[in-house]
Amino acid sequence: MVIKMRKDSGEKELLHLVEFLQKKGLEVKDASSSEFKVVGVVGDTSVIDVKDIEALSGVDKVTRIQDPFKKANRLMKSEDTVIDVSGVKIGGGTFTVMAGPCSVETREQILEVANSVQKSGAQILRGGAFKPRTSPYAFQGLEMEGLELLKEARKETGLPIVTEIMSPSHVAKFAEEVDVIQVGARNMQNFDLLKELGKIDTPILLKRGMSATIEEWLMSAEYIMAGGNENVILCERGIRTFEKYTRNTLDLSAVLAVKKLSHLPVIVDPSHATGKRWMVKDLALAAAAVGADGLMIEVHNDPENALCDGAQSLEPKAFDKLMKSVNSLVTALRSTGE
Amino acid sequence: MVIKMRKDSGEKELLHLVEFLQKKGLEVKDASSSEFKVVGVVGDTSVIDVKDIEALSGVDKVTRIQDPFKKANRLMKSEDTVIDVSGVKIGGGTFTVMAGPCSVETREQILEVANSVQKSGAQILRGGAFKPRTSPYAFQGLEMEGLELLKEARKETGLPIVTEIMSPSHVAKFAEEVDVIQVGARNMQNFDLLKELGKIDTPILLKRGMSATIEEWLMSAEYIMAGGNENVILCERGIRTFEKYTRNTLDLSAVLAVKKLSHLPVIVDPSHATGKRWMVKDLALAAAAVGADGLMIEVHNDPENALCDGAQSLEPKAFDKLMKSVNSLVTALRSTGE
Amino acid sequence: MVIKMRKDSGEKELLHLVEFLQKKGLEVKDASSSEFKVVGVVGDTSVIDVKDIEALSGVDKVTRIQDPFKKANRLMKSEDTVIDVSGVKIGGGTFTVMAGPCSVETREQILEVANSVQKSGAQILRGGAFKPRTSPYAFQGLEMEGLELLKEARKETGLPIVTEIMSPSHVAKFAEEVDVIQVGARNMQNFDLLKELGKIDTPILLKRGMSATIEEWLMSAEYIMAGGNENVILCERGIRTFEKYTRNTLDLSAVLAVKKLSHLPVIVDPSHATGKRWMVKDLALAAAAVGADGLMIEVHNDPENALCDGAQSLEPKAFDKLMKSVNSLVTALRSTGE
Amino acid sequence: MVIKMRKDSGEKELLHLVEFLQKKGLEVKDASSSEFKVVGVVGDTSVIDVKDIEALSGVDKVTRIQDPFKKANRLMKSEDTVIDVSGVKIGGGTFTVMAGPCSVETREQILEVANSVQKSGAQILRGGAFKPRTSPYAFQGLEMEGLELLKEARKETGLPIVTEIMSPSHVAKFAEEVDVIQVGARNMQNFDLLKELGKIDTPILLKRGMSATIEEWLMSAEYIMAGGNENVILCERGIRTFEKYTRNTLDLSAVLAVKKLSHLPVIVDPSHATGKRWMVKDLALAAAAVGADGLMIEVHNDPENALCDGAQSLEPKAFDKLMKSVNSLVTALRSTGE
Repeated sequence: MVIKMRKDSGEKELLHLVEFLQKKGLEVKDASSSEFKVVGVVGDTSVIDVKDIEALSGVDKVTRIQDPFKKANRLMKSEDTVIDVSGVKIGGGTFTVMAGPCSVETREQILEVANSVQKSGAQILRGGAFKPRTSPYAFQGLEMEGLELLKEARKETGLPIVTEIMSPSHVAKFAEEVDVIQVGARNMQNFDLLKELGKIDTPILLKRGMSATIEEWLMSAEYIMAGGNENVILCERGIRTFEKYTRNTLDLSAVLAVKKLSHLPVIVDPSHATGKRWMVKDLALAAAAVGADGLMIEVHNDPENALCDGAQSLEPKAFDKLMKSVNSLVTALRSTGE
Repeated sequence: MVIKMRKDSGEKELLHLVEFLQKKGLEVKDASSSEFKVVGVVGDTSVIDVKDIEALSGVDKVTRIQDPFKKANRLMKSEDTVIDVSGVKIGGGTFTVMAGPCSVETREQILEVANSVQKSGAQILRGGAFKPRTSPYAFQGLEMEGLELLKEARKETGLPIVTEIMSPSHVAKFAEEVDVIQVGARNMQNFDLLKELGKIDTPILLKRGMSATIEEWLMSAEYIMAGGNENVILCERGIRTFEKYTRNTLDLSAVLAVKKLSHLPVIVDPSHATGKRWMVKDLALAAAAVGADGLMIEVHNDPENALCDGAQSLEPKAFDKLMKSVNSLVTALRSTGE
Repeated sequence: MVIKMRKDSGEKELLHLVEFLQKKGLEVKDASSSEFKVVGVVGDTSVIDVKDIEALSGVDKVTRIQDPFKKANRLMKSEDTVIDVSGVKIGGGTFTVMAGPCSVETREQILEVANSVQKSGAQILRGGAFKPRTSPYAFQGLEMEGLELLKEARKETGLPIVTEIMSPSHVAKFAEEVDVIQVGARNMQNFDLLKELGKIDTPILLKRGMSATIEEWLMSAEYIMAGGNENVILCERGIRTFEKYTRNTLDLSAVLAVKKLSHLPVIVDPSHATGKRWMVKDLALAAAAVGADGLMIEVHNDPENALCDGAQSLEPKAFDKLMKSVNSLVTALRSTGE
Repeated sequence: MVIKMRKDSGEKELLHLVEFLQKKGLEVKDASSSEFKVVGVVGDTSVIDVKDIEALSGVDKVTRIQDPFKKANRLMKSEDTVIDVSGVKIGGGTFTVMAGPCSVETREQILEVANSVQKSGAQILRGGAFKPRTSPYAFQGLEMEGLELLKEARKETGLPIVTEIMSPSHVAKFAEEVDVIQVGARNMQNFDLLKELGKIDTPILLKRGMSATIEEWLMSAEYIMAGGNENVILCERGIRTFEKYTRNTLDLSAVLAVKKLSHLPVIVDPSHATGKRWMVKDLALAAAAVGADGLMIEVHNDPENALCDGAQSLEPKAFDKLMKSVNSLVTALRSTGE
């Protein structure tokens, strides 16, 4: 951490700052020039908040040099983390596809989709039971009934299931019944929920918040890991920008950034990122090419009558084509050593 | 709602669309030209999601004409809503200031600040007991102990209290003990929490999410109102943009937009918007000038040693100066009929 | 400037960096800790580009501590710059309103508007002769004929005129005939144009680019000033964000930032910022309250038939009301010493 | 175009609107419901500006249904445009790589890089002679001397050259001496420059502006095409967002959007998008996978001592590796029919 003092600050402010830092167990080094008074801070600065230093009188600007996340940090663990999802491995060179409908709607629908995505090669079944909808008047999911249907689909196909959690009060139940618990973009900084998820050991799929920086996203992973649950899978699903042609802007550079900064696996969700069915396959290929550890894809047997997000769902036939293309690409990349 | 069909779509797709809409109780009108096939939809379109229509085959583009919020809509209630907070009125031409520390830290601190902001003219005491912090290693608030201290400060000064809720499991307790329950920016789309808050009648202060559009913000208010709690106060606190000089970008146009679209009161929080103490007073004046119904301001008796957000907290003396300036401005605006 | 080296870098990289910096006349100080290798750079770092340092092998992160602008910097000149526009002063405590139509359309129109805004108290007449339009098929302005009409309006009313320049080839003519030359948001980083404007001494009104940071905006002012023309007036006109209810998001915090970082005057254009006529007056009041040095307002005698941007233009009567309100506010603020 | 009237508007406003539209040669159709007064507009609405309609009294909201670009529109020309750059084809299924240094610095440097990128398979040589730099104190390029060196490199290698234009006054010279003229992101809406470029027939490489929507970008292409020059190549180079880990956020969905909306070829520049050398190869692969028509890559023989943007430049050896990987990928995609 580097702290620049204001031109009009004096010895008193400097001493006060040094004292403040020393109380936190940190060492201070002078790095001033003839023009600027600057100090460097040595030690574990993750315990202090930049804003707290900025509040001290005489302080002009504070720059963090050390990343504020620890357990999620690649510096603490250089090899890739591999998460075991009921036998399916994610991370460390695998490529895992999670597919299924936005919402579980009927027994028939989820069984049909589950069987179909399995045939195409998906390894994990996704399906929403509790749905975060912008409008209180929109379909909110089948809730517990949806969860039961998902479990039935798992029994029939053997595919592990991933579904979104909306409430801390469901953590215990989800931990028992679900293979991966998804935290949606809107809840990425629902710290109360994150803390509860830190107490279990079920793998967590942590979606990036719509306006979350990469650092904030990793800090949310850190919340879960600090609680004791190190099984965190990250999921890039587009960020909010000025461009409105796509629902969000898919940020594939973030995949590279996360893999450099952290040892956690990261997958990509092109369905939510764009909101447009016809963009999904090509962006899935791009995600594989950039080095993501897998994909999350919406598939519906009857997208036109889907109760949610039909516009971005693929039909089973289109998903099958996507899987063939992605598999060829992954094979080609591996054979050339990418 | 206006729906444009794709050039390559035919009669079949059109009939399918019409049927889909009629099933939802909506009427369809042809508005096509020689170049484009376009239909208009008549009836309560708030029951349908634009994305569901976009999923239908042959559909190119869907445009909503009716706002998707109802209870929060100015069209449904033309006069301003006035919220009664234990005797303090918000909305309808009043100007209400909520002030206090970011976090409740000690008995001494909260009592000193409460007495001081009251003397300066604040009408509601703010103070965080449960704190949403980006880092799991940062101070998370005194929690229940903080709540007790806030209640003590209320008893001593008579000021109603507002504090942030982080968990749905606290709703019942907060409903009994707190005068206004704050929903923070990070939880604006924590729908599980919003639904719980819809079941009580305590006034809710709903902060705008960091990347929430004005429509999404009003839809979150609608969640609470649809549940039965119509006592919603909105709070603009800055949005996330590319500009990093300030922590967020305060969007004062949003105050005007909200007051046109909705009958709910809206206040402004310049402390969180900027993260910079020296900007607070001038932006508070601007908020009053633009027509906000009040302010939320961070005040700390010892900002340098604040356990959170000291950089944006005013000292009591500076807050007193702010109140004098704001009061003069409000008086001047009223005398000229603004 | 503070430079952090990568963990895996060695003595060789460090020596290479030191050499690189010394060649540029800079001194290097060690500020390392047991965990991180960090150096501080002493001297005029405005001559180096952060990205050039980041290109050196072994370098992890570079942080600039000194602002890269010099002539525009408040540290170089603590008192406010006051620009003299043919007798009208801008900056240093004055409050100046520039008003007029988006485009000059007819002799009658510009004379009528000019007379009317003058009566209401505007001090400078604005009017577009060359118009930047997103579509090549839209009205592009009366061009040179528009300039002649503006000059006629100046002759009749005595108001100095401000108009936008689109081409470096017009600089000489504009320098002779116009009182203030406006650089539009889209040309804020048209460096070729900025360099030409640095060679004259006509005051320049430099609008902030749609996605320009405050630093980039000041760097564009620096371009003009570095060339020798120190008469730069800045104009905040909204930035591009995800929110689409308003055309842009007016960033009033930027006024405070600019006044802290620079000695140059800064005015606000609420017409372009919002694109909505009914928002203009209240945001004009907010701009005055936050401490701007003036306003730029679109006024049209017949907004419905305006050839451009009618939706954001005020009718003369509404402008007159705005001026009365703004004047009352400015008077009230001054009487209380704001 | 669909126009919704305000609730409080009457017959008079409607008649006025109809008259306004009919004067422009457009037909009007009623599409009202019992709740909302809505009209549809039939005919070539690209001649009208949405904002002009919004200025009419009684109008509430205007929605464009027809795209405002014509010559760039895929509806006007369904097959891909193929641009011939001195024998090298771009578009229509080819994959073209342009590579070279950010700035031309010395004869030795440009010749060495040119020979090297040619050997690796690049088909066009890029190199900056006139450089847009944020700071007036930074290296601005070798200017005309740089152009001469580029021509020499072309002579030696046979590679066509692309370089950025900064001034309309250089159009004639560039048209004679350069194979592709680049318009940088900062000049995407420098309409004066675009108009000049419309008068020649040299291929133009039009970079997307930092905050340009896809529609605005295509409208800038339309400016050039409307003038008569239909040889426009688009280049996605990242947009400005809140995320600062990368210099910009590369928007690969935009490639898909452009290819759907327009028949023009589009290439991707991962070097400028990220500003980070180690991200370039993987994003180049992603760009190929998503279906871009080519790449623009910065290569420098000595990135550490580059006079600009060294941090994002690849060394020749790394570029060679990139080309091998990209070629394998393109081959693999083609063999599977992507």
